[in-house]
This record gives sequence, structure tokens and C-alpha cells, in this order.
Amino acid sequence: MDLLNNYLIYLIPVFGLIGIIAMAIKAAWVTKQDAGDGDMVTLAGYIADGAMAFLRAEWKVLSYFVVVAGLLLAWSGTTVVTSSPVIAISFVCGAFLSAFAGFLGMRIATKANVRTTQAARTSLAKALKVSFTGGTVMGLGVAGLAIVGLGSLFIVFYQYYVVHVTGSSVNGEAMAKALDVLAGFSLGAESIALFARVGGGIYTKAADVGADLVGKVEAGIPEDDVRNPATIADNVGDNVGDVAGMGADLFGSYVATMLATMVLGREIVSHDAFGGIAPILLPMVIAGLGLIFSIVGAAFVKIKNETDSVQKALNLGNWMSIVLTAVATYFVVQWMLPNDAFHMVRDEDAGGAIKAGSLVFTKNGVFMSIVVGLVVGTLMSIITEYYTAMGKRPVLSIIRQSSTGHATNIIGGLAVGMESTVLPILVLASGIYGSYHFAGLYGVAIAAAGMMATTAMQLAIDAFGPIADNAGGIAEMSRLPEEVRHRTDNLDAVGNTTAATGKGFAIASAALTSLALFAAFVGVAGIEHIDIYKADVLAGLFVGGMIPFIFSALCISAVGRAAMAMVEEVRRQFREIPGIMEYKAKPEYEKCVAISTKASIREMVAPGLIALITPIIIGFAFGPEVLGGLLAGVTVSGVLMGIFQSNAGGAWDNAKKSFEKGCLINGEMYYKKSEPHKASVTGDTVGDPFKDTSGPSMNILIKLMSIVSLVIAPHLHKDVSPTERVQNELQQKSHITHVIKADKKA
Amino acid sequence: MDLLNNYLIYLIPVFGLIGIIAMAIKAAWVTKQDAGDGDMVTLAGYIADGAMAFLRAEWKVLSYFVVVAGLLLAWSGTTVVTSSPVIAISFVCGAFLSAFAGFLGMRIATKANVRTTQAARTSLAKALKVSFTGGTVMGLGVAGLAIVGLGSLFIVFYQYYVVHVTGSSVNGEAMAKALDVLAGFSLGAESIALFARVGGGIYTKAADVGADLVGKVEAGIPEDDVRNPATIADNVGDNVGDVAGMGADLFGSYVATMLATMVLGREIVSHDAFGGIAPILLPMVIAGLGLIFSIVGAAFVKIKNETDSVQKALNLGNWMSIVLTAVATYFVVQWMLPNDAFHMVRDEDAGGAIKAGSLVFTKNGVFMSIVVGLVVGTLMSIITEYYTAMGKRPVLSIIRQSSTGHATNIIGGLAVGMESTVLPILVLASGIYGSYHFAGLYGVAIAAAGMMATTAMQLAIDAFGPIADNAGGIAEMSRLPEEVRHRTDNLDAVGNTTAATGKGFAIASAALTSLALFAAFVGVAGIEHIDIYKADVLAGLFVGGMIPFIFSALCISAVGRAAMAMVEEVRRQFREIPGIMEYKAKPEYEKCVAISTKASIREMVAPGLIALITPIIIGFAFGPEVLGGLLAGVTVSGVLMGIFQSNAGGAWDNAKKSFEKGCLINGEMYYKKSEPHKASVTGDTVGDPFKDTSGPSMNILIKLMSIVSLVIAPHLHKDVSPTERVQNELQQKSHITHVIKADKKA
Repeated sequence: MDLLNNYLIYLIPVFGLIGIIAMAIKAAWVTKQDAGDGDMVTLAGYIADGAMAFLRAEWKVLSYFVVVAGLLLAWSGTTVVTSSPVIAISFVCGAFLSAFAGFLGMRIATKANVRTTQAARTSLAKALKVSFTGGTVMGLGVAGLAIVGLGSLFIVFYQYYVVHVTGSSVNGEAMAKALDVLAGFSLGAESIALFARVGGGIYTKAADVGADLVGKVEAGIPEDDVRNPATIADNVGDNVGDVAGMGADLFGSYVATMLATMVLGREIVSHDAFGGIAPILLPMVIAGLGLIFSIVGAAFVKIKNETDSVQKALNLGNWMSIVLTAVATYFVVQWMLPNDAFHMVRDEDAGGAIKAGSLVFTKNGVFMSIVVGLVVGTLMSIITEYYTAMGKRPVLSIIRQSSTGHATNIIGGLAVGMESTVLPILVLASGIYGSYHFAGLYGVAIAAAGMMATTAMQLAIDAFGPIADNAGGIAEMSRLPEEVRHRTDNLDAVGNTTAATGKGFAIASAALTSLALFAAFVGVAGIEHIDIYKADVLAGLFVGGMIPFIFSALCISAVGRAAMAMVEEVRRQFREIPGIMEYKAKPEYEKCVAISTKASIREMVAPGLIALITPIIIGFAFGPEVLGGLLAGVTVSGVLMGIFQSNAGGAWDNAKKSFEKGCLINGEMYYKKSEPHKASVTGDTVGDPFKDTSGPSMNILIKLMSIVSLVIAPHLHKDVSPTERVQNELQQKSHITHVIKADKKA
Repeated sequence: MDLLNNYLIYLIPVFGLIGIIAMAIKAAWVTKQDAGDGDMVTLAGYIADGAMAFLRAEWKVLSYFVVVAGLLLAWSGTTVVTSSPVIAISFVCGAFLSAFAGFLGMRIATKANVRTTQAARTSLAKALKVSFTGGTVMGLGVAGLAIVGLGSLFIVFYQYYVVHVTGSSVNGEAMAKALDVLAGFSLGAESIALFARVGGGIYTKAADVGADLVGKVEAGIPEDDVRNPATIADNVGDNVGDVAGMGADLFGSYVATMLATMVLGREIVSHDAFGGIAPILLPMVIAGLGLIFSIVGAAFVKIKNETDSVQKALNLGNWMSIVLTAVATYFVVQWMLPNDAFHMVRDEDAGGAIKAGSLVFTKNGVFMSIVVGLVVGTLMSIITEYYTAMGKRPVLSIIRQSSTGHATNIIGGLAVGMESTVLPILVLASGIYGSYHFAGLYGVAIAAAGMMATTAMQLAIDAFGPIADNAGGIAEMSRLPEEVRHRTDNLDAVGNTTAATGKGFAIASAALTSLALFAAFVGVAGIEHIDIYKADVLAGLFVGGMIPFIFSALCISAVGRAAMAMVEEVRRQFREIPGIMEYKAKPEYEKCVAISTKASIREMVAPGLIALITPIIIGFAFGPEVLGGLLAGVTVSGVLMGIFQSNAGGAWDNAKKSFEKGCLINGEMYYKKSEPHKASVTGDTVGDPFKDTSGPSMNILIKLMSIVSLVIAPHLHKDVSPTERVQNELQQKSHITHVIKADKKA
């Protein structure tokens, strides 16, 4: 047992390696499946090429960014902005691994799509196996690379800053430095995530909206029709937005929750068998367990017959991994954490002693907080599904309001989106309250870590959706027989549901992660409160609350602009290339791909800079407390705008889809091409950038701003607030007046 | 001078009386103008009757509410919830005067409308005079009644609680009680405002949307066509929503800013010639001056020739009143406030001495804060106008995006609305920062009071708009000659601009008022910070941020439901009453009026209860600090949602209106009935509830929740937080463990 205690820190990357090996096996399996023939291979080739073209273009910009930001970080480490030039190394590692995970996931997703189509010619069971295995590669890749990266870097920094420099292996002030530097890893990962999410979101919706507006509405050809020049860009978009974007988002959340919990764990006075660092190691161990049990859970995702429920198979796998991880976590907590109560906060000035009046909790409290995190994640997914699912009240209300036209459909969707914030916020607020109740701010962070433990599984389920969607697209474009399309539609329908629940999970994780980072920020900045009764902090809260609005506005209008460019290009091709409509001439797919690629790269810069630079300006100009107000404002408003936009978009989408099978409004049936259906298409088009661009971008925005703040936190001047300076002067002057008056009286 | 010092307190209601007398003179003048003949009188009669029918129905419900709430307040005064049963009297006075001001304003507005039409037969100058004088009645009535009511009640409570009970006339603990009880006046006013704004907002948009959907879209008859059964309801709506609703909103802000400044003024240690109560009297004196100079400014609103600019005349009057008030305020501040520095906060436990480390400022600081308030109000109006005006970039971008259909029009409008939050929030944040910088939280409150000083003038300009709009409607319905309609259109166009700037002013005033109330709440609750680093306070912030979303959702869907009922009724009348289309049969206007009336009364209850009850539950269950977090969340999110919705709606409206004169998109001209115009109508319909129901309701929501909190503030238990209780137990247990361990070791 002692041996295990001593070497636990080295076990952590091993968990990650196991994940990577499992991923490699699954990737190899997918690759060797039959890719079909003729048109299928050609079309899949276009999609894969388009996806890689986007990645190459994105990487080109991002490599500049990473080099410049890395140099700035290295330089800042020699000044007062960050702790050490070494932070640049963590940053580059985080950025590289996040990008690499995205690359691997997308590479396999663009192979799995056509292989799923081919498998669907045989059976639903086979098609599910190929598409879900494709998704698993993304999930395992993200989780595996994150754990290997973070775990290894932690070992290096721990050995260097703590063991090597201080000659002791216990938690102390040196550990703070190690974690400061480690924060760069999360910063790198989250920066890439921003560009992947925002850029990918703009790409996919510019292509989608553009393809629909001309193809479906003007030319009257179905979605995914091979004659539509934008159809390849649309299918590429599913991969770069829903696979790579979502992967980068969760990679970022996964790393950030671990990091924030570690930072807060350092502030705990713990008498454990690991030199007091058990609370720091715990989140990484839990993540490792979650990864292992995600591999186990994935084995349960299978069906036998054509009539078996795909959703049930996915649910079984998901629940297996969650329950097993929770049980294992219980024993790990019992083993790693000591029996006496923990105290938060350590007082480094007093040699790491307990600070007076500090918070107290027990290891059972820590476990209960993890349970709270799991419950929050599950409830958020369920609520999201309710608000966006077909046949439930919210979507039905939009369908009913489609009967009086475009405007009432929009009003209905906006109202549903706004209403849908209520339950998630109550769940989240109760989660914050509960996890804090059980284990203080460490509890809030470890709740997030618990929720994120099975990220590999969540992401596998998420990535399965767009693969199935692509598979259906390829089947449609290759004009395969009805039964093939029927099977891929079955998978695609399940994929729509998992996309909705996945979004709920992603928002919940981003919210809890931001709160954990927020708590870590306050601890590292060394401030005692963030008092919104102070006018400058309140002003910060207002400005913070506004940022998600301008960020959303930028994302939405970027999609609008890019979609209009796409519309014009498609119209041009229909006009100038004769024979497209008769399948005689091939449209110039690559031109549409290029439009989406260029637009997304160009338009992701402005929102990205807002997220990166605002905390730095506010932090250094007004001090950490105002920055804290800003972060709180961004987080609250970002979570609300994220839920509002994602759910409104999801509900509009399914209201439109409901018309495919026919909708009963006031005793009359309406189908596709009816007036209410046209109104519902308007809603869906408005919802597209909501649910796939601006909505999910909120996740990254709130996390990135928090992580930037955490990185600069140790170096903010606590007493810099200009208002306070003026006050001090006035106080002094008024004192002088009083003295003079007293003199006169005397 | 000593005499003036002693009797200043009695002068305050006199200012209000002067306003009321001026109002009576102007009301009499409007009444004796020529009301025209035939159809005009009949139609105006329908509108006046409809408006009164709504008021009667609303008052019936409100009188129940006032009686029940008054009894609850009286009872609560005998328990621990509020300070004294006397608060019920203030509450009833505030509710009654607010309702009475609304009644007077609407009574005259429904007379001024037809008289404006008649005057427009002669000249534009005459038409402006009638319509603006009608608006002035509303402005002077609101300001006059508010000052008379608040000023008189203050005299009574001051005499009773301070002079009579303590036998001294100086500021002391007794003053706190007097102001606690006075807060009921503001609570009453704001409660009525909530129902007037929300109910009025639902009324006007249900009628407007319903009338447009069937009349313009289905039957193809123009707006304000006498054949449309919903047209009278539509015109009534302008009065109950834009006149009475806006009036009640500003009545509430006006009273609440004064009250909040008085409450904060009590915490100042001031060595003035008024027994230390100069900071308490100051906001009422400033309001009185503003009222007098509004009367002066109104005299400058006139034109001579048909080609003179109406907008310039309004601007001249507005600027006259603002500048004169500012100059007068400078001298009043110099006269009333002492020369030595003020200290905030008094320490009642030390006999009203200066609390250690309390904030310091000077009388020049107070004046500078007032200037900040004036600047904030002006900038907010200018920014709002930019984002909603024809021919400016935001509206032009929506017009351009109308060319690709309904969906892109909606996306464009939503993006404009979101983007439009940036500058107002920066102005507001700078305003908070600046006014605090000059005079602490008293500065924030007095800035609001300064901004609200010329409420009478602002409201006169605001109420002029719907009167002109109605006048145009009556001209159209009576089929008067082209030139009459031309003159009323001229006034109406100016009215649209003033409506936009008025909304900017109303939001700014609501935001600053809420902040002032928030500051007063914290002072009265006796807490030192509102620390969002505490998990429960942060949870409160999240829940608070969510409330404007559900409130908006309820308002929007109420309009949607009521509009659909209206659509069905109009369709029924067209179907069942033969001859309507040929002007042979009169539609049943009163049925449509009844639908709007019933719907608005029914639907205003749920949002109203949310606003009233949430602070009480949170305050008593979780303590004042969590309630503070909730209020901050509501205020930030409410201001953002208010600006977003109001400006999006305004921009959509003017994008649609732009098509009347033709819009140039990509080198081609588009007019009414073109495809882009149809898309713009969709945007306008979506924008209707945004800009006239849910958007402006945010103002009331944030103010009402703050005022409810202020009323219950003195009675909240500071240490009630359940989490803190658990912590104390754990602390104790952990202490015991440590003691036992120490024993063992020993």
C-alpha cells in the first residue's frame, strides 16, 4: 500500500495511456471496415478532404497564434504578468494536444461516416457499431491525451518545483508555483477550443444556412442533394463543428476542472499519506477511473436486431460508466483522504497552518459533492431533452404557433428558449449550494470533476450523432436504396437527441468548470471577498454580463454574412454551370468549402480577442476584485445566453422536423411544404446559428475568460483600484481639515 | 435665510402643487379645443371608452390587490416582516396616486388625440401644440402628484417619528424608522407600475399583432382601417401601453430614486443648517426644481411654419429644462450642503458618530455626481436612437438582410439588439464608477435623482408620441384629406424617435434607480458586503439572472396567446358579419377591446407575483446577503434583456417603415409588398412584444424587486444562511476532534 501511495502520481498518466491504446485499437478497427464503392467513396473523399482543408487553414492561423501567445507568455513570465517563462511550455503542450485530439477524432469520424453507410446496407446493428466506435475514438482520444498531458506535466513540475527545489515532497508554497505554471496547459487547451468552437460553429452554419436557402427553398431540391454545390461544405461542417468543436470544448472543460480542483486542493490542510497532496491528486485519479470505466461502458453499447432501441443501448453504456465510476470513486475517496476533517484555507505565512475561521469538511462531504456533480449533469441533460424533444409541450407550442405565420413561430421559439433557462439555473444553483455545503469551494470544483469524469463516454455518444448524420447524407447523395436511408435515419434521429443532451451536459460542465476556475482565481489572487456592494465591482459585473451579448452578436452576424456569400456562390454555380440540375455536370464543391473555411477563420478572430484580452485589461487596470465581478457577470450571463440560444435552436429544429411526419394543428394535419411548415423552416434557420454557433460558444467564452484570469491572478495588484486611491487622498485631506478646525477651536 | 432653512421641508409639496395647478390649466385648455365632427368624435369616443373600460377592469383587480397587500403589510408591521403597520398607509397612498396620475394622463390623452386631428386640419403648429400640451398633462401630473405625495408623507412621518417622539429635529435613529415607513409609498407606486406596464404592454401588442395579422396580412386593408374590428383596440392600446404604462413606470422611478437617495442620505454625517438632514431633503428639492423648469421648458416647444422642425422644437424645450435645472441644482447644492467633507457611514451605536474608515466626499462631489447622472441619461437616449433610427447602420443592416428572407431578417435584428447592449452598459458602468468616485453610494443615488429631475418634461415628450399616433389613426379611420394625414404623419414620425429615446431614458433611469435602491437595501439590512465568492450568494446571483428570462418568456407568450385569440375573433367577424368590407356594417369593436382587456388582466398576474414574492422568499430563507446577490443578478440581466429587446424591436420597426419610402438593396429598389418588405413585417411583428411588452417590463421588474427587498430589509436575519449554520456545527465538531487528539497525544 505504501508503494502505491508513493507511486500513485506516476499511475495517473498510465490511465491516460490505456485510453490512448484503446483508442488506437478502435481507430484501426474502423479503418479496416468496408468503405463501399463508387460514388460513396468519392463523396466521402470530398468530405474528408474538405474537413482536412479546414483544419489545415485553421491550424495555420492557430500556429501563428500559439507562437505569438507562447512568446508573450514566456516574456510575461520574466515580468510581473505570469509566474514563469515555463508557463509557455505548458501552454504549447495544451494547445498541441487539444488540436491533436481534434485531428484524430475528425480523421476517424470522416472515415467512420462512409463505413457506417456501407454497414447500414447490411444491418442496423452493424451501422451502430461502426458509427459509435467512430465516436469512441474521439472520446478516448480527448480524455486519454488530456490525462497523459496534464498528468505528465504535473509530475515534471512537481518534481522540479517541489521535490527538487525544496527537497521535500509535501504540499507547500512551492506547490503553488507548480500549479501556476501548470495552468498554462489549460489556457492552451481552452484557446484552441475557442477557435475550434467558434470557427467550427461559423463554418457549419454558414454552409448549412447557405445550402438550405438556395437548395431547399429556391431550387426545391432535397437536403444533402449531390447537385447542391454547398452540400459537401454542409457535411464537412458537421465534422468540424459537431465533432472537432465539441471535442475541443470538452477537452477544455475536462482539463480545466481538474486544474481548478487541484488549485483549490492545494489550499486544503490535509493530513494524508501523500504528503498532504491527496486533495490535489484526487481529481486526476477520478478522471482516470472515469476513462477506464468509459471503455467498459462502451462495450455495452450494442444491439442485435433491427427493432432494438439504439437509444436504450446508448443509455445502458452511459449509465454503466457513470455508476461504475461513482462506486469506484467512493472507494478511492475513502482510501486517499484522511479521516479527520479538512480545513480550508492554509495560511502560508504561518507555515501552512490552518487559517482562523477557515471552512471545515470531511471526506464524506467530498464524496457527496461528487454525487451532486453527477446529479447536476444528469438533470441538465434531461431538462435539455425535454425542452427540445419532439412531442413534448415546448416543441408542440412552437408547432401550434407556426399556424399563424413566421412571426408567431419565432415568438414561440424565443419564449421557449427563455423559459428553458429556469430549471437548469435552479439545478445549477442548487448544485453550487449543495456541493459548497458538503465541501466548500473544493466541493464545487470536485463536483465539476465528478461530472466530467466520464467525458470519454459523453463525447463518444456526442460524436456518434454527426457521424450518423454524415452517413445518412452520403446514403442520400449516393442515392442508395430506401432501407439504407431508413437505417441511417434511425441512427440520425437518436443522434439529434444525444446532440441535445450533449449540449445540456456541455453547458453544465462549462458552468461548473467556470465556477471552479472562479474559486481558484479568488484563492490565487489572494483576495478575501468579491464585494458587489463596491461600485467598481458592480460596474465590472455589468460589463461582464454584457460580453456574452456582444459575443453572440458577433457569432450570429458572422454566420449571416458567410451564409449570404454562400448563397451568392451557389446561385452563381446554378447559373453559370449548365447541366448541374440534370446530374450532367459536377458542381464546384471546393469553392463552397473555401468560402466557409475563409469566413470562419476570419470571423473567429474578433470574438476570440474579446475573450482573451478583456480580463487582462480589467485585471491590471482595476485589480482582482473588479475582475472577479467581471467573471461573475460573464458566467451568469453566458450560462443564461447559452441555455437560451441552444434550447431555442433545438426546439425550432425539432418543430420543423415534426412536419415530416405531419403535425395536427386545430384539428387539421399539416405536412412538408404547407404554410405552417414554411414558418417552421424560418424558425429552424434562425435557430441554426443559435444552437450551433453562438449558444455553444458561450461555454468556451466563460471558461476561457476564467482561465486567463487564473493565469494572471498571482500578479494583480490588490490595491490598485483608482477609486480607492482617491478615497485615501480624500480621507487624508478631510483629516487635515478636522485637525485645522480643532486647532482653531483650541 | 434661517426662516427658509426651517421651512424648506414645507416648500417641497408646494413645488408639487405648482405642477398640479399647471397641469389643470393645460388640461382645461386641451378640453376646450375643437374635437371635430361626425366620424371623428364617434371614433375618438370608442377609443376613450375602450381605454376607460381597460382602466376600470384593471382597477378592479388592482383594488383587490391593494386591499390584500395593504392588509398584509399592516399585519406584517405587527410582526417582524416590516417596521410598522403605518407602512400600509404609505403603500395605499403610493398605489392610489400612481393610478390617479395614470388616469389623468390617459383621460387627457384620449381627448387630445382627436383634437390634434382636428387641429391638423388647420396647421402643423396647432397640431403640435395640442398634442404636446396633452403630453404635458401626463408629465406634470406624474411629477406633481409624486412630489406632493412623497413630500407630504415625509413631513407627517418626520414630525411624528422624529420631532414628536424624540423631541429633536436632527437626523438620528428615529429618521430610519420614518424612512422605513415612507418606503411603502414607493412600493405602492411600483406595484401599480408593474401591472400598468405589463398589463398595458400585453394589451397593446395583443391588439396590434392581432389587427396586423388578419387586417394587413390576410384581408389586405391598411393599418387603422375602420373596417378592422381590432383597430379600436389597437388605438386604445397605444394609450394604455404607451401613455399610462410609461407614466406609471416613470412615476415609480421618480419616487424610488428620491426615496433611495433619502435613505442613503440618512447615513451621511453632515453638519448642515438643517439638523443634519440636508442630504435627505436634497433629492426632493432637486425634483421640485426639475418640475418647475419642466414647465418653463415646455413653453419653448412650439413652431411657427409648416416646414419648421418638430424635433428641434422638442429638443429645445428638453435642453432648456435640463440646463436650467442643472444650473439651479448647482446653487441649491452650494446653499444646502456644508463646506466640510461628508462622511459615510454614521454609526448609530456611537450616537451617530462617523464610522471608522468610512467614505469621504464633498458637496462639489455631490454636484458632480448629479452631472454624471444627466450625462448618462443623455448618452443612453442618443445611443438608443442610433440603434433604432432609420438610415443608420443597424437598421440598414436589417434591411439588407431582409433580401434573403424572413430568417435572415430575424437573425439580423437579434444581432443588432444584442450588439446594442455594449455602449449603454459601458456608459452605465462608467456612470456607476464615476458617481461613486465623486460621492460614494450617495453619489450613485443622487445621479439617478439628477437624471430623473426633469421627468415631467421627458414624459411630456414621451406621451406626445402616442397622442400623435392616435391622431393619425383617427385621421385615417375618418378618411380625412391627404394634407391632414400628412401633418399627423409628420408628428408621428417624430413620436417614433421620441419613443425610442424615451425608452433609453426609462431603462437608464430604471437601472440607476435599482442600483440606488440596491445600495439603500444593503445599508438598511445592515450587512457589510455582498460577497459573490460565497457559494450561496453566487447561487442567488444565478437565480436572479434567470428571472428576467422567465419574466420575458411569460410576457411574450402572453402576447402570443392573446394575439391568437384576437385573430380568431377578427376572422369570425369578417366571416359572420356581412358588409363589413363594404363599410356597410359596423364591426363589433367592443368584443376585441374585451379580448385585449381580459387577456392583459389575466396574464399580468403570474409575472407580477414572481417579482413580488421571490425577494421575500429568498430574503427570509437565505438572509440579506443572498438576497443582495439575487438583486444584483436581476438588475444586470434585466438591464441587458431590456436593452436587447427594446432596441431589437425598435430596429425591426424602423426597418419595416423604411420600405414605405423604398429601400435600396444591392442596387435594386424595394417597396411595400415586395418580398424583402414581407420579411421586414415578420421582424416587426416579432419586435412588437419585444419593444412594448417584455423589454420595458424589465424596468419595473428590477425596480420592484429592489423596493420589496428594501421594505423587508430591516427585518432579515443576518446570520440565517443554512450553510453557515452547518459550518458552525462542523467547526465545533472539528474543534472537539482536535481537542480529543491533543488529549490522546498528551
